[in-house]
Amino acid sequence: MQGVLDIPNELNGLEEVLYGSLPHVEQVFANQLVSELPPVDQMCQYIERYRGKMLRPTLVLLCGATAHPKIDTLLAEKDNKTLITNAHVVCGAVCEMVHMATLVHDDVLDEAEIRRRGQTLNMLKGNETSVILGDYLIASAYELCSSLNSPVPSQIVGNASAVMCTGELLQLHHRNNLSLDEATYIEILERKTAALIGAACELGALSTLGYDQTEHPTTRSLKSFGRHLGIAFQIQDDVLDLMGTQETVGKSVGKDLEKGKLTYPLIHHLANADADQRARSLELITKASSCDTSVLDELINGISSTDSIKATEELAASYVLKSKDSLTSLPQTAGKMMLELIADAVINRSH
Amino acid sequence: MQGVLDIPNELNGLEEVLYGSLPHVEQVFANQLVSELPPVDQMCQYIERYRGKMLRPTLVLLCGATAHPKIDTLLAEKDNKTLITNAHVVCGAVCEMVHMATLVHDDVLDEAEIRRRGQTLNMLKGNETSVILGDYLIASAYELCSSLNSPVPSQIVGNASAVMCTGELLQLHHRNNLSLDEATYIEILERKTAALIGAACELGALSTLGYDQTEHPTTRSLKSFGRHLGIAFQIQDDVLDLMGTQETVGKSVGKDLEKGKLTYPLIHHLANADADQRARSLELITKASSCDTSVLDELINGISSTDSIKATEELAASYVLKSKDSLTSLPQTAGKMMLELIADAVINRSH
Repeated sequence: MQGVLDIPNELNGLEEVLYGSLPHVEQVFANQLVSELPPVDQMCQYIERYRGKMLRPTLVLLCGATAHPKIDTLLAEKDNKTLITNAHVVCGAVCEMVHMATLVHDDVLDEAEIRRRGQTLNMLKGNETSVILGDYLIASAYELCSSLNSPVPSQIVGNASAVMCTGELLQLHHRNNLSLDEATYIEILERKTAALIGAACELGALSTLGYDQTEHPTTRSLKSFGRHLGIAFQIQDDVLDLMGTQETVGKSVGKDLEKGKLTYPLIHHLANADADQRARSLELITKASSCDTSVLDELINGISSTDSIKATEELAASYVLKSKDSLTSLPQTAGKMMLELIADAVINRSH
Repeated sequence: MQGVLDIPNELNGLEEVLYGSLPHVEQVFANQLVSELPPVDQMCQYIERYRGKMLRPTLVLLCGATAHPKIDTLLAEKDNKTLITNAHVVCGAVCEMVHMATLVHDDVLDEAEIRRRGQTLNMLKGNETSVILGDYLIASAYELCSSLNSPVPSQIVGNASAVMCTGELLQLHHRNNLSLDEATYIEILERKTAALIGAACELGALSTLGYDQTEHPTTRSLKSFGRHLGIAFQIQDDVLDLMGTQETVGKSVGKDLEKGKLTYPLIHHLANADADQRARSLELITKASSCDTSVLDELINGISSTDSIKATEELAASYVLKSKDSLTSLPQTAGKMMLELIADAVINRSH
């Protein structure tokens, strides 16, 4: 398992506590999906390919620890079990499962794309398996979440999942909309990415403070941290999708463009380019799905004329700042320091 | 709205109570899906095409009423609000929403089929919309369910949904398996259909008795009723899928066969036909997806040689009997009588 980031070794051992708990999250995750039916177990092995950086469970655990009023004392006493409980581990597994379900369902579209290019054989089964596997993950996440002794976590997870769907739908609605504006772009990100990351932070805090503490200032601060971080994270993801194309030609093909998704670098570029450049870029965008890397190269060169990558990185940085600002009322603990490090790392990552 | 069945007017007004409450279920259902985003609201109108007989909400309400120890007194006093509460209405909407999500996701495959026959235009968007719409329904169902003051309903709904997925997967695993046996066929039905119908009956009972009463004899009886009824219901559905082909040629095309799903009429036929007939039927089954109605006609004629439709109807009737047997320990109330009538109606329906 690869962690979200490299953390300096000066946080009272907090990183060891977290990395020591992530395998428990994975264990709870795996146990929930075990089935007495061999075909189900086979399918669940397919999930391995979606295993990622465990950002959401890391945030559940870390926000849980940060919300504890005695975090630094407990770290010094190495009382890890008080800091991170079974409820945190369960909520971490739930958030990762919901996230993974969205990745699996995204594949339904990807496989349809492959089919369009002619590879029809067996793709039908692939599509169906993706739909059912995603549904199984969502249902299992809810079942696991309801094992906690309150309906509040289920409510938070259900709501975040519904909001995610509305974000996906809003994005679908604006497919190939070349006049997509910044406000709508940010609303899509708030819904499809930030809602679940905010929920992860909130669930971490509530698992420490009690599930009736949704209005507790610490809960609100950590939830707000997560929501802003989620937006920054997705903006950075969108930059990587576009720029990864140029660096590793052939590996990534600018999936967002191919799917007709306009992301911030292009929104900024189109809003700031002169008329000729804008016309040329619009032409290139509509051609970009043809897998011709020279089209993408020219488009990316065009973007540099409006400094749009720099503007995008500044936009992401402004959300990182907002996420850190959300923490100002919290005491200066190892937990808060690590959250700030994670926030900075999210926009400095290259993967 | 069309009801599940026609009920004779001699049940102390119970049918009026139920049909009076179903619009509340529809209202709660609609309210939960309302969004401030116009594209989401547009998509939810698309749901209208999936509106059905409301079997699951009807069972939630009816089992809720039946579980009340004073049902007949309350009916005589026309005290409908004690009999059917907001919790019953919420659980009814939740079950219908989960059921509808499965219908929507089934469409992903259907649209893929249409695509295979050449109609590719715009189907990609259709596929994606189906996936997201289904996910939105599932998430909304969980969010609604968690508005109840206990995690137990969420646990029951989460578990039933996960089991449904394993049933779908088991069915997918056995696609084109011409040696599918009766035991596996029944297990698929138990999972993909009976689990949710059993959960609907259980939720109805618990909403009356209290969510800690999962082991109450009445809860267990009503859940068992629902599970057996669900199996009978699906067996009958499978007969209708096959025989509807002959009666209304061109409308239905024997979707199960087209999807490589062997159902009981054919399982029984293949197990009981002589060698020549069996060989011919196997040949016809593999051809059945070619939309040639003469193939289906010959296959259905062949089935009559082994009396397999009669055997299937007997199998369905045996599960109806089991469902009614589950109720023997319950007092003889209007609720029990109506459940028995519904059980009989399920296998006598032609739609």
